[in-house]
Formats: sequence, C-alpha cells, structure tokens
Amino acid sequence: MQIAMIQDKIVPVKELEPVYFDRGMFFGDGVYEVIRSYNGKFFAFEEHLQRFAGSLSAIKISGVDIELIRSRIMKAFDAAGIANAKIYFHITRGSEPRDHVWNAGLQPNFFLTVSEVADNTEKKTKGIAVSTHPDWRWKRCDIKSLNLLANVLASTDAAKKGCGEAILVDEAGLITEGAGSAFFAVRGQTLQTAPLTANILPSITRDFAIKAGRNIGLEVIEKSLTVEEAASSDELLIASTTQDTVAVVRFDDKVIGDGKPGKYTKLLAREFLSFTV
Amino acid sequence: MQIAMIQDKIVPVKELEPVYFDRGMFFGDGVYEVIRSYNGKFFAFEEHLQRFAGSLSAIKISGVDIELIRSRIMKAFDAAGIANAKIYFHITRGSEPRDHVWNAGLQPNFFLTVSEVADNTEKKTKGIAVSTHPDWRWKRCDIKSLNLLANVLASTDAAKKGCGEAILVDEAGLITEGAGSAFFAVRGQTLQTAPLTANILPSITRDFAIKAGRNIGLEVIEKSLTVEEAASSDELLIASTTQDTVAVVRFDDKVIGDGKPGKYTKLLAREFLSFTV
Repeated sequence: MQIAMIQDKIVPVKELEPVYFDRGMFFGDGVYEVIRSYNGKFFAFEEHLQRFAGSLSAIKISGVDIELIRSRIMKAFDAAGIANAKIYFHITRGSEPRDHVWNAGLQPNFFLTVSEVADNTEKKTKGIAVSTHPDWRWKRCDIKSLNLLANVLASTDAAKKGCGEAILVDEAGLITEGAGSAFFAVRGQTLQTAPLTANILPSITRDFAIKAGRNIGLEVIEKSLTVEEAASSDELLIASTTQDTVAVVRFDDKVIGDGKPGKYTKLLAREFLSFTV
Repeated sequence: MQIAMIQDKIVPVKELEPVYFDRGMFFGDGVYEVIRSYNGKFFAFEEHLQRFAGSLSAIKISGVDIELIRSRIMKAFDAAGIANAKIYFHITRGSEPRDHVWNAGLQPNFFLTVSEVADNTEKKTKGIAVSTHPDWRWKRCDIKSLNLLANVLASTDAAKKGCGEAILVDEAGLITEGAGSAFFAVRGQTLQTAPLTANILPSITRDFAIKAGRNIGLEVIEKSLTVEEAASSDELLIASTTQDTVAVVRFDDKVIGDGKPGKYTKLLAREFLSFTV
C-alpha cells in the first residue's frame, strides 16, 4: 500500500490533500511575484503581472489566464483592506506523485497572501549595513522561481552579521545583485548597476530606480561592479519592491561615505517615491 | 486583516494549515533523500541517513534527531509492506510567514512517502537514450536540496525528446552528471566520471558503481568528460538509487557502440546487483 508520513503520523496516500504533492514543495517548480500598494494604490501592477506571465512561460507552465490572476489579486486586496499592502503570490505546476518529468495537463496551484508592508522608516533614515556572500544561485536568475535556498542562506548569513542585506558575488569576484534586491553604486555623477543577464532578476524596482537616477541627473552605467569598486564608491543603495530604495552605509567592514545616506541616494529616494503617488 | 487565497478562495491566514507556510514551498528550504529496498531489504540505508544528516547540517537545519528519522523510515516501510520500495523523505526548515531570514527555533517539517519502485527491466535490457542540456543548477549541488527546478526542466526536455535522462553540461562544455543520476563512460579499460566537487551530488549509487567497476577490472578515472569524449566512448551508463545502473545506447544523435548495452556495462550491472542481496 502506498503510504505517506507527516511528522510521526502515517496516512494513506489517497487521503492526503493535494498540497502535500505540490511540485512547488518537491522541486520549487513554480514562480512568484511580490506586489505592493502605497496608500491604497498599487505600484507597477502591470509590470509585475507581465513579468509573472514571462516567468510562467520560461518554465513552461501553460494554461494560466493572467486576467484571472489579476482579478484574484484585486479581490484579495479589496478583502484585506490594507492600505500599504504586500501581496505575495505564486503558481506551481500542480500536484502529482513526485517525478522530475511533469505530466501534461496538470492543474496549476495558485496561492496568495496579503499582509502589511513592514515599516522601514528607520532603515531609510539611517541606511543599512550589507555583507557579501558567494552567489550560489542557479544560472537562470532571470526567472523569478521558487528555487531560493541560495538567497535564504545568504540573507540569513547577513542577518546574523547584523546586516540588512546580503550582496551576492559571483566566481569572478563581480557583484550580481542583493539576495532580495537590486544593488547600485553612486560613483561621481554615475549610477552603476549590473546589466540584465541570465544571472540577474529583471527587477521592476531596478527599472524605476534607474529612471529616478536619470531624473536627478546621474548617468546610468550598466556594468558589473567588483567588490573593491563597490567598497570604494561614494554611495551605495539597494532597491526592492517592499523597501523601495534604501541607502547602504556599510559594506562588509568598510564604511561608505560618512556612514550616513548620501546626497544622491536621498535625492533618488525622493524621486522614486514621486512615482508611487 | 491578513488573508490568504488558495485558487479562488479567500481564507483568513490564521485558519490555514501550517503546510501552506512551509518554507519548503516558498524557498525550497529543505533537503531530501530517496532510499530503496530490494526484496524487502534496504540498500545503503546508513549511507543515505549519513548524507541526509550532512545535507541538514549544510543548510543549517538543526535539532533533527537522525535516530528518530531512522525509526520513522522503518515504521513506514513496515506499514507499507512493499518489497521493492522507494522511500522518499524530506525535511524542511519549518512553517512561518514568508521571510528569507529564518527564525531560530522553528520546528522542522518531515514528510515521507513509500511507493513501489517502477520496473525498469526493459530499460536495463535495451538501454536508454540521453540528451544533453545546459546545467542550470545552483552552485551547491553537493547539497541534496529541494531546489530542483533546473533538474525538472532538463528531465522534461529529455523526456520530450524520447530520452530517459538529461545529461547536464556546464558552461565550459564539461559534463557534470545526469539530472537525476551519476554519469559514467567506459573508455578502453577505464571507467570515467566527474570528480566530486560542489557541482556534483555525492551520489551513493555512484560510489557503488565505482566499486563495481573496480571489481570487474576497470581502472576508475575521476575526471570530467567533454561532450565529445562522452559521445565517442565505448560504453556509457547512468546510476541512480531507483534504477541502479542503466546502459546509455544513444547520446544526443550519436549511437554508442552497437546500440546495445556493452560488455562492461552488463558486467558492472551484475556486480552492482550482487551488493544489493
């Protein structure tokens, strides 16, 4: 008889809920998005939906109606009634007995949560410290998949060192991005960040940070930074959906600038926020 | 109010079962093993348990009593009453609201299934075709984690091409291993396979295949093969827990040998099976 066991309890396989056979659990076989609202208004909603459709396509999950996903998000957002909401959602390929090779015709599973965006006023005011970590992620980081163990290990390593983000460094000593954010350096009148390759998430917040940088007069350079270049930059910042832009005031052991958010970083943050109203 | 949504249904977060907040689903934040039995007797049970303990330690999941895991496996195996059983089990870091950084003191989640090993007599008799695929996996494949989307995509690509396994090729054009197996070439009197590095799973079946190769008089060379070297080998084979050793008779478009399992592969398979009784 086929059986399953959850902690100490034996259960016949047929009595188990499909979630226990979710390919998201067995393989991370799914993709996700995080969307946020500012004061009751979504930010970059269409861009996130479009990227989500791209992620589904990249891992060959078909048959998902993006309009249905849109309506579910709206419905959940309305039901939660949270003005500054963080909406997480994922779609996995579906539930079936574990096998690397998926069966065509599986019904994808959708899961979503709405919660309050954590207040990051203090981080934004004081800036954060970051620490470097080897970039152990897979080679298709352009897909926003549920395979995030490398990010988890790096983020937790950073947190244990009292840092607010891990900055990932590839085997060539180049910075790819943060474990959960895009990474930028201000060097002179330039704003530098890694170019979009298969190793980089096409971050929507990155796009808006670049736009904000241009608006305040910085020249944008899409070129990977070495660890040494980052450490010797005038200013550093990260950008993510839930935190928008946050100054980095310490990079490993190196204090950046005078240890406070720099001039351009503050200007850029203000410009960025103007997009969200 | 924090809410969740499963397919079209809105559910208060507090009413959701913990499995929906399993870090295994959000991040693939867990590790697994597959153990099998031959005619009611486990094969390489201790080796798998030891590797599992190593995987837990590598991703810093602590507080798991391996003796408890052992007793759960025995209990489930007895309850299932399957002579040729495949036992899959995983431990994830636990269930909590989604955050890359985990909370200390989380209670890990254990899940296990017992099912019948699929009969592979035909594969063993005729051999299988394999196809190459870029190795998109993360850079810590020495950890047997739930981050398996790269394996899934490669395996399904192979299946669509009528192949029984995907052979993963890194950016330097070197073969690492199969998407779910170790990969070997017989070249003259040698048995060649990639050395154990961070890019290779320390496969237990690989160890036994190496031992079997030595027992039948082959010299074992642990050195990565190029795609061209593999395609021009005398014989090829894969090795995995559920299939033990299987001859590869076609490699992409290239027929290997005379298109049938070769002499050494058959000898090696017989020697391998002698370990399992």
